Amino acid sequence: MATSTYTVTGMTCGHCVSAVQKEIGKIDGVTGVDVDLATGRVQVSATGAISDAEVAAAVDEAGYEVANS
Amino acid sequence: MATSTYTVTGMTCGHCVSAVQKEIGKIDGVTGVDVDLATGRVQVSATGAISDAEVAAAVDEAGYEVANS
Repeated sequence: MATSTYTVTGMTCGHCVSAVQKEIGKIDGVTGVDVDLATGRVQVSATGAISDAEVAAAVDEAGYEVANS
Repeated sequence: MATSTYTVTGMTCGHCVSAVQKEIGKIDGVTGVDVDLATGRVQVSATGAISDAEVAAAVDEAGYEVANS
């Protein structure tokens, strides 16, 4: 079980949150995606290690961007 | 053919626009819903007269509000 946290920019409403959750949720091994709209904080839980690149690609697919930390 | 224009508040992104278009589009006789996200201006085309109350109810259903003009 691994948890990673990202900051996603560009989300403005609950539909945006749903779109990000849906795309990240498609990644193999992901068991949970917790999004805080106000801060853009996205916490991803997975059965094992997940690739930052895969998460970034999923966020991009949803139409948003992962901020550089 | 009738066209009515409303101002809808609370839309922040393309998902919001889609949600409003979808709900208003369900009203009997509606043939087109044109939304300008920046101004909140929603132009509804219909085969005949449409009820403002029905449009307001559809906007509410989508999670937004028609501003008083």
